[in-house]
Amino acid sequence: MIKIFKLKNIISIKDFERSDIDYILDEASKLEDIAKSKELSDELKGKILGLMFFEPSTRTRMSFETAMKRLDGECIGFENSGSSSVSKGESIADTAKMFEGYSDALVIRHELEGVSKFISDIVDVPVINAGDGAGQHPTQTLLDLYTIKKEIGSIDNLKIALIGDLKFGRTVHSLANALGLYDNVELYFVSPNELKMPQEILHDLDQMKMSYTEVSKIDEIIDKVNILYVTRIQKERFGDINDYIQIKGAYIINEKMLKGKDLIVMHPLPRIDEIDSDVDNTKYNKYFAQAENAVPVRMAILKTLIKNNPK
Amino acid sequence: MIKIFKLKNIISIKDFERSDIDYILDEASKLEDIAKSKELSDELKGKILGLMFFEPSTRTRMSFETAMKRLDGECIGFENSGSSSVSKGESIADTAKMFEGYSDALVIRHELEGVSKFISDIVDVPVINAGDGAGQHPTQTLLDLYTIKKEIGSIDNLKIALIGDLKFGRTVHSLANALGLYDNVELYFVSPNELKMPQEILHDLDQMKMSYTEVSKIDEIIDKVNILYVTRIQKERFGDINDYIQIKGAYIINEKMLKGKDLIVMHPLPRIDEIDSDVDNTKYNKYFAQAENAVPVRMAILKTLIKNNPK
Amino acid sequence: MIKIFKLKNIISIKDFERSDIDYILDEASKLEDIAKSKELSDELKGKILGLMFFEPSTRTRMSFETAMKRLDGECIGFENSGSSSVSKGESIADTAKMFEGYSDALVIRHELEGVSKFISDIVDVPVINAGDGAGQHPTQTLLDLYTIKKEIGSIDNLKIALIGDLKFGRTVHSLANALGLYDNVELYFVSPNELKMPQEILHDLDQMKMSYTEVSKIDEIIDKVNILYVTRIQKERFGDINDYIQIKGAYIINEKMLKGKDLIVMHPLPRIDEIDSDVDNTKYNKYFAQAENAVPVRMAILKTLIKNNPK
Repeated sequence: MIKIFKLKNIISIKDFERSDIDYILDEASKLEDIAKSKELSDELKGKILGLMFFEPSTRTRMSFETAMKRLDGECIGFENSGSSSVSKGESIADTAKMFEGYSDALVIRHELEGVSKFISDIVDVPVINAGDGAGQHPTQTLLDLYTIKKEIGSIDNLKIALIGDLKFGRTVHSLANALGLYDNVELYFVSPNELKMPQEILHDLDQMKMSYTEVSKIDEIIDKVNILYVTRIQKERFGDINDYIQIKGAYIINEKMLKGKDLIVMHPLPRIDEIDSDVDNTKYNKYFAQAENAVPVRMAILKTLIKNNPK
Repeated sequence: MIKIFKLKNIISIKDFERSDIDYILDEASKLEDIAKSKELSDELKGKILGLMFFEPSTRTRMSFETAMKRLDGECIGFENSGSSSVSKGESIADTAKMFEGYSDALVIRHELEGVSKFISDIVDVPVINAGDGAGQHPTQTLLDLYTIKKEIGSIDNLKIALIGDLKFGRTVHSLANALGLYDNVELYFVSPNELKMPQEILHDLDQMKMSYTEVSKIDEIIDKVNILYVTRIQKERFGDINDYIQIKGAYIINEKMLKGKDLIVMHPLPRIDEIDSDVDNTKYNKYFAQAENAVPVRMAILKTLIKNNPK
Repeated sequence: MIKIFKLKNIISIKDFERSDIDYILDEASKLEDIAKSKELSDELKGKILGLMFFEPSTRTRMSFETAMKRLDGECIGFENSGSSSVSKGESIADTAKMFEGYSDALVIRHELEGVSKFISDIVDVPVINAGDGAGQHPTQTLLDLYTIKKEIGSIDNLKIALIGDLKFGRTVHSLANALGLYDNVELYFVSPNELKMPQEILHDLDQMKMSYTEVSKIDEIIDKVNILYVTRIQKERFGDINDYIQIKGAYIINEKMLKGKDLIVMHPLPRIDEIDSDVDNTKYNKYFAQAENAVPVRMAILKTLIKNNPK
């Protein structure tokens, strides 16, 4: 059976079926040696990726660039709209049409939800959403899933705690949605009361008949789970700074609390202090590996979309 | 007969004879498939283009980069002088000498007229003017001419309306000059009184025995012309904002006024609102194609200059 | 005898023995034709250089990029931390770990001394210090030595004047240290009293039994030396601006004072006015050649480190 990947654009993880995700994870796995430059590739020679980063994101941009360049492709683009035509008053649509004319695929980062979708409707080249506001960041979810599969061997039958800001964190929203496609995954949502998982996400999970539990303390779940997926709690989310100071400490992971447990720690990064640096040199630390996995996963996405949709 | 291109630098369209322009347009035409990555090229493998953009210009920079990279070349450079040595007080001459040492050709964008010419006098590598203040932007003119030839079949025997800010728009100045090299071209200059074509350009055209007519309303010429070449009217050009508001509407193109006409609409972009978006999905719209034509035309220029002038 | 280069990181010129320096200079010499794109190379095909420029430096960044790209490698990175994860509060350690995951070698520029060393301790890929505060800039020193050898034929047995700001100039500190590895080099330190060579550097030189003389006027030494190595005197270094104005003129080189002398003039650039532009077109000017030499020297460094330390 020949597998195919049928999506032309990567806008939301909700557009994926399990077979689509598995296709990308399999491809990524095959590209590992090229990602680490142990093997050469000219798979995307002569191809150009247009990076439209209306807001900065070093990590995402760097890993897309590395992914493209390891495949012998090239990048053009801007990071923040200050120096682009947008600052001269050009519409996003016109800017996107320009990039379409120069590129074989587009990567969009914007602070407003829906911008990637909007652009995908008006251009003919594939569009990849690299984060739109509180919306989606589907390639982050794919690399999260890839990391889980690589580190634990399977995504099915896992107990996973999502920790921190579950209200505004698009990363955990997308990840929860995607995990609903796998068998027998149990989720634990660990957050302060102010930052609980939104009702619409819970509603999605109910529809997928997923099992989840909301708790407010890490120690309630740390003995049960295979993965602690940690996210940052931003003080800007609190009306009263004292509320933030009071709860902050309860969501910090350190080596001592992990001792003897059979689990891994993940984080989409950047981290501030929600994972103590004493975890960095332990076997629990999979967040640096996770960041590195961005390269083979984004290579798989770029290769697949550009090869499937020639100009 | 073997054709040659004898210019080493692209500073002003006035340096071109018709045969020089035709040479670039022919080359560009041959490079179309590479521009669209339907075919691979390593014509400029190992070569480096130095981009000195003292003022930002996403569109021009992106298309030069794409042109270079489609030919397997590479780019270095800066966009705006804030982060360059220039901000440490280095002279433009010294900055240019540095770039000369690292590159095979230089592209210069500067807000002051004459900077490209100045740099071309002190470096040995080819220099391309990518816009200097109210001066010239010759590669824009070449891609305008390429678009005309590609869309209409010939540049001779055309009636062309240049619309909008004819006083400060370097694009229309260069284009008018270049059209003087072709046979039997009739120009119509459509602008508010405050923004009429400057006397020195009219003088140039008189010397070339070109036929031109100045009018203030689009409807006076819309039934006569093959091309509406639209440019933006910037409100900053008006001492009194009310003057701007009053005349602005008279220079907006929309689908309704084009209906049934046998013409094309061009624009150097970015546009603000001088072409209504309802024109975008009509046959009249050639401004997106025009933007895309920047790639083969700039490929032709880069290939020709770098091949003709090895270090 | 097969020569090897044993350093994994380029942090300080003090880590080099003479044989290490000679290795890089020999390599650089062999790469000259590729540096000038007279010959093609794919020595670093598929490899990626991570440029972490926490402070801007056009010249250093451009020449590293050119060096990498002439060898068919690619670059990723940022220039100034404003648009990087660092501005979101991420630690330098985490940013470096991220870049390690995406690159085959890192180049670091930071305003604080010791940052490159710190990063080299936590990542596995080779790290190159491209200037850290008042500390070291070892690749500048290597290209200075390369220029001396190329222009004069040998580094031994020379008389060299270091001129200008000897107190804060990391370039002259590194160069003085490196020259201590060569035979029979005599140094002359020419500076205002406020900007004399620091005691610790003099102490280093004493230990290496180097011969040096401190003077305050160029005319005391101009008849004796083979090289005038000029650096900029920044007015910010003076508490009283009048002190600066008074002494400034005494450290400016012009054509008249060079006439009939058998010497060359070097400068790490950018220059402001400490070398009069009338020197530019004389045989004394080796500062533009010196800037161009950055490419083969940095090519030699990149090739050696990346080839010796595969991921």
